[in-house]
Amino acid sequence: MTKEKPIVGIVCGSVSDFPAIEETMKVLDMFGIGYSVDVKSAHRLPDDMRRYALEAEEKGYRVIIAVAGGAVDLSGMIAAYTILPVIGLPVKTSALSGLDSLYSMVQMPEGIPVAVVGIGRGKNAGLFAAEVLAVSDRKVRSKLLAYREELAAKTREDAKKNIGKMRASRKHPGLK
Amino acid sequence: MTKEKPIVGIVCGSVSDFPAIEETMKVLDMFGIGYSVDVKSAHRLPDDMRRYALEAEEKGYRVIIAVAGGAVDLSGMIAAYTILPVIGLPVKTSALSGLDSLYSMVQMPEGIPVAVVGIGRGKNAGLFAAEVLAVSDRKVRSKLLAYREELAAKTREDAKKNIGKMRASRKHPGLK
Amino acid sequence: MTKEKPIVGIVCGSVSDFPAIEETMKVLDMFGIGYSVDVKSAHRLPDDMRRYALEAEEKGYRVIIAVAGGAVDLSGMIAAYTILPVIGLPVKTSALSGLDSLYSMVQMPEGIPVAVVGIGRGKNAGLFAAEVLAVSDRKVRSKLLAYREELAAKTREDAKKNIGKMRASRKHPGLK
Amino acid sequence: MTKEKPIVGIVCGSVSDFPAIEETMKVLDMFGIGYSVDVKSAHRLPDDMRRYALEAEEKGYRVIIAVAGGAVDLSGMIAAYTILPVIGLPVKTSALSGLDSLYSMVQMPEGIPVAVVGIGRGKNAGLFAAEVLAVSDRKVRSKLLAYREELAAKTREDAKKNIGKMRASRKHPGLK
Amino acid sequence: MTKEKPIVGIVCGSVSDFPAIEETMKVLDMFGIGYSVDVKSAHRLPDDMRRYALEAEEKGYRVIIAVAGGAVDLSGMIAAYTILPVIGLPVKTSALSGLDSLYSMVQMPEGIPVAVVGIGRGKNAGLFAAEVLAVSDRKVRSKLLAYREELAAKTREDAKKNIGKMRASRKHPGLK
Amino acid sequence: MTKEKPIVGIVCGSVSDFPAIEETMKVLDMFGIGYSVDVKSAHRLPDDMRRYALEAEEKGYRVIIAVAGGAVDLSGMIAAYTILPVIGLPVKTSALSGLDSLYSMVQMPEGIPVAVVGIGRGKNAGLFAAEVLAVSDRKVRSKLLAYREELAAKTREDAKKNIGKMRASRKHPGLK
Amino acid sequence: MTKEKPIVGIVCGSVSDFPAIEETMKVLDMFGIGYSVDVKSAHRLPDDMRRYALEAEEKGYRVIIAVAGGAVDLSGMIAAYTILPVIGLPVKTSALSGLDSLYSMVQMPEGIPVAVVGIGRGKNAGLFAAEVLAVSDRKVRSKLLAYREELAAKTREDAKKNIGKMRASRKHPGLK
Amino acid sequence: MTKEKPIVGIVCGSVSDFPAIEETMKVLDMFGIGYSVDVKSAHRLPDDMRRYALEAEEKGYRVIIAVAGGAVDLSGMIAAYTILPVIGLPVKTSALSGLDSLYSMVQMPEGIPVAVVGIGRGKNAGLFAAEVLAVSDRKVRSKLLAYREELAAKTREDAKKNIGKMRASRKHPGLK
Repeated sequence: MTKEKPIVGIVCGSVSDFPAIEETMKVLDMFGIGYSVDVKSAHRLPDDMRRYALEAEEKGYRVIIAVAGGAVDLSGMIAAYTILPVIGLPVKTSALSGLDSLYSMVQMPEGIPVAVVGIGRGKNAGLFAAEVLAVSDRKVRSKLLAYREELAAKTREDAKKNIGKMRASRKHPGLK
Repeated sequence: MTKEKPIVGIVCGSVSDFPAIEETMKVLDMFGIGYSVDVKSAHRLPDDMRRYALEAEEKGYRVIIAVAGGAVDLSGMIAAYTILPVIGLPVKTSALSGLDSLYSMVQMPEGIPVAVVGIGRGKNAGLFAAEVLAVSDRKVRSKLLAYREELAAKTREDAKKNIGKMRASRKHPGLK
Repeated sequence: MTKEKPIVGIVCGSVSDFPAIEETMKVLDMFGIGYSVDVKSAHRLPDDMRRYALEAEEKGYRVIIAVAGGAVDLSGMIAAYTILPVIGLPVKTSALSGLDSLYSMVQMPEGIPVAVVGIGRGKNAGLFAAEVLAVSDRKVRSKLLAYREELAAKTREDAKKNIGKMRASRKHPGLK
Repeated sequence: MTKEKPIVGIVCGSVSDFPAIEETMKVLDMFGIGYSVDVKSAHRLPDDMRRYALEAEEKGYRVIIAVAGGAVDLSGMIAAYTILPVIGLPVKTSALSGLDSLYSMVQMPEGIPVAVVGIGRGKNAGLFAAEVLAVSDRKVRSKLLAYREELAAKTREDAKKNIGKMRASRKHPGLK
Repeated sequence: MTKEKPIVGIVCGSVSDFPAIEETMKVLDMFGIGYSVDVKSAHRLPDDMRRYALEAEEKGYRVIIAVAGGAVDLSGMIAAYTILPVIGLPVKTSALSGLDSLYSMVQMPEGIPVAVVGIGRGKNAGLFAAEVLAVSDRKVRSKLLAYREELAAKTREDAKKNIGKMRASRKHPGLK
Repeated sequence: MTKEKPIVGIVCGSVSDFPAIEETMKVLDMFGIGYSVDVKSAHRLPDDMRRYALEAEEKGYRVIIAVAGGAVDLSGMIAAYTILPVIGLPVKTSALSGLDSLYSMVQMPEGIPVAVVGIGRGKNAGLFAAEVLAVSDRKVRSKLLAYREELAAKTREDAKKNIGKMRASRKHPGLK
Repeated sequence: MTKEKPIVGIVCGSVSDFPAIEETMKVLDMFGIGYSVDVKSAHRLPDDMRRYALEAEEKGYRVIIAVAGGAVDLSGMIAAYTILPVIGLPVKTSALSGLDSLYSMVQMPEGIPVAVVGIGRGKNAGLFAAEVLAVSDRKVRSKLLAYREELAAKTREDAKKNIGKMRASRKHPGLK
Repeated sequence: MTKEKPIVGIVCGSVSDFPAIEETMKVLDMFGIGYSVDVKSAHRLPDDMRRYALEAEEKGYRVIIAVAGGAVDLSGMIAAYTILPVIGLPVKTSALSGLDSLYSMVQMPEGIPVAVVGIGRGKNAGLFAAEVLAVSDRKVRSKLLAYREELAAKTREDAKKNIGKMRASRKHPGLK
């Protein structure tokens, strides 16, 4: 059923944020979680953004991922108009290395929460959304458990392969 | 039912983090959400912390709030052992104004998400936990809506009172 | 005529920002410029804030001073809803020394400008508003010129008095 | 009439700042606002800079945009010699990512205001100048309103096109 | 004997940290100190990492070098499970220039020490490990003394050659 | 035997650094490790400092803890003159929150290592010194193991007591 | 002769900078170097400042110490009008810990040099001025040599006394 | 006479700092000031560096320019051994953008001054050295005055040419 309609709303401040959500979408695709993608610039389209946030619950969204770079309070303004959990994904900017994005998102005033993942951590934004859904959706929960196991296996395998290669190169006599 | 057993696990890195969760607890109290408080130092009690995270789901927790200051990766290590949503609450430290806490929490590697609220924003940690629960709990949802209305009303009232006072002081002839 | 109705709108994110505008108001009082003070929290009262910005021109405002601390995009959101010049006044916060306020205000996306004065520089926010009005109001212009002269005179006098005191203390034989 | 003579003075600290004002000029061109461009290095040509600021009003300028990178207090020194509104445009530097430019401009002492737009936000410098002029010029005001509408339309259209492309790529089964 | 089995454990958070330990391994190779290389992601493989740290002494390690980038508390978590000296080697990250890695490693809570070398200073991590071993191993001590002499000689020679080249270029008449 | 003569050399840049080593000394006292305390300002007493470092091994020191605040390269200069492991303990300064101390210590050039503990983490400097000694001293090793157990026990007990108090206050109905 | 007329010009941006020059004056008093103190705000009294810099050589100054806090380019503007060596003394500000002062002073554009001492390092500003004078004044040179010896002696004595006290307290059994 | 032997000592921490002094040398060449270039790594060649500083006066140096990147206290250690004015030239490093170099140089303890020019500002280091020499050398003084005039002329000419080009391009109808 989660495949039929979007339950995660991904909202970007600009189309230039799209590369940042590539991994977010892949994670949700992999978990079979339907989502929508919108661009609702807080500053250029404030009323579109407002409507988006006000109608979010009604449209069936259960979590929102708000993506923005620079001094853009998109996640905060979305959170101001909805009580859905809003996950902030700050995007690296050229001028201040993403610190402006991070600061603009994270220090929300008390009362209106936003929870922020790392700068450019699009995959984690998707995974956190899945974890929130998994609180009441056993299928997503199972997929998360499976994902973790694969991740561990892949990490182990990668390590093994790379250490093997290093050993094979015989460049390091001290390596036991 | 949410009153009967803890469904939010608040885990601190140290007892010195307790002032930081005062508001978190008040919010959960107000919403009738049961919670537990534990101190599981990632570095001093790594195995206690590990067990805490491994048993969290079984104990009935649906969300975890991990609280820490300094270079303490409590939220990240908890997240490493559970797929429950982990909300990071960074605490201000004396040496680096809390930036070390924020950085230590927020830049998690891809695969293991933590979502972070502002430095010292204990109330928002509680509210975000409530929002996550509200995804599948209509009672919490209603309380969140009511809370927002009260917050707005209180903010308006406070503003009115304070602007009234300013006007009454007659110190500012330009104030219309 | 500038005395009769407010032409500068001062809008704060919170009543706790009031100390930051004390000097702003004094400057406007001194110049005989009428102003209003409002609290329209971008996050707690988003629709009040929106209405404030949408109605600002109609109410006769010619300049807006938006005051906020932390990750509060009040100035940016006001600017999103009006083409009046919006002056951002960042307020020092305890967690990140006001840097979060400054960054949140200053790095606006292209298209929607906000111009920011220094952290806690309330007087300069008022003076800049006066300078904007003086572009088309010769009375304000004259007052600004007079203010500058007084400021110079006062600075000279203060310097003279303090250097005199230092000299009189006879603590510094090298001071000629 | 605004087409006939420059009413905005753009003054740079160095010819190397010219790329930073390309967008500033385009905005003013588009709005039919006449402007001049000068290079008056605060440190290399202090007396040229002084004369520029002292004669600015007489030449008919109503707003000044001061552009500089590094520890160059061009905007502040211009502001010291005129009561015209001075908009500071900090330029990114290689050594300290523009933070030195931003700090050097923004923390002006009380009494002599400068209002600063984002690092490298040349378009916003031009737009803010237009907003200041629009306070007393209805033509500029109309153009600003039209610009905002176009900006919104273009943002919406861009979003639509890009989301359409993403959908057409069929790479994301979860995208509804 | 030190050639026969690993006495330094190098543990990375990810295979992407391998370039950072190239110099570390070369130093240990040069000194004839045996070492192992492992990847034990604190977050992706928390139990592998735990076992690694718990078994480290038993395996014969005397020093551990923990290598990580971003908000990865690998060194701290290893230190939590062993009393072997843990040397933290922070790796430069793209988002926050390695400051997040440095902060995440260095501000350990009192009781569980980690000692950190510079961001990306892999050679120094290896040398510090050698210095720790030299406290009780005279062969390593002799090699360290010899290394220092070579380093000084090489630095002197390099300087001489480069200054000679500069002089030979005759580009600088003032150079005596 | 470790009680009879100093084997850890604590060297401060200034007597004002003494409060920072109070915990360092307590740890070494507790472990029965003899140590000396000296003040050898790198800048005010460069030759005293040099002699200190050159004679350190001969005097029987096995580890050096160098303590300094501000732009004082004491640890680096000591390391330049000895191959003993040098542990840097940066001290918080008023001007730049200790960041200058940390940066001045940690980014040593390749070839001459210093390993740095957290700003103001005097206890960890002592513990790390003990861990280095424990590599070849089983008594210190046993004491470190015992210390860890006590630390864990004390942390658990403190937590229990404080959570008990919180529960007893009956202020938090949600606390289960 | 150096006693008869001022040869060092100390120029502050504000009377509030006076505490910062207390130590500067003491050093110059001690060395018998005559100096003047002036307040020439770059922004409030730009023409007084300009005249000060233009007449500095003529008045007999050989070195200038420019003192300022915040985004005040006093040292740079003085340097723009004179070829006397200008020593910048940045003063700690409340908003940005003096970093704004330091950045505003230090990153001067190529061609117009300012050399900066540490934030709040008033004594060093005086000493550096003395060193510049000592290049051609043997009396000042002798006094500098004597000062260094006293400084070393005093540092040694202080260290001895304080270590003695520590030893006498018998609180630290490990202290040998 | 200044042509005959070196009176400025340029000392680098590493041959990799040579590009940073290219402009320094050109300025001194242009002014006919003799100088030497040496590499005396504070950490790799501490005794060479010490001898360099101790013999500097005797060799006829009147000013020293110390150049270093990273946490290298070369300028401070040179200053510890001589009363000649030491000008610090911090070099940009890859890890921390030169901030570590700047901080390591600038926050010297009271008593031993170093005066620092901007990160990578090699030309200004040379010019400041010339200004120090000009205090007692009228030839250098004349050349400095001539240099300033040329700099101003060149800046004016460059500006004229570039503004001319911009105008000629006819891309900007608003440019008057």
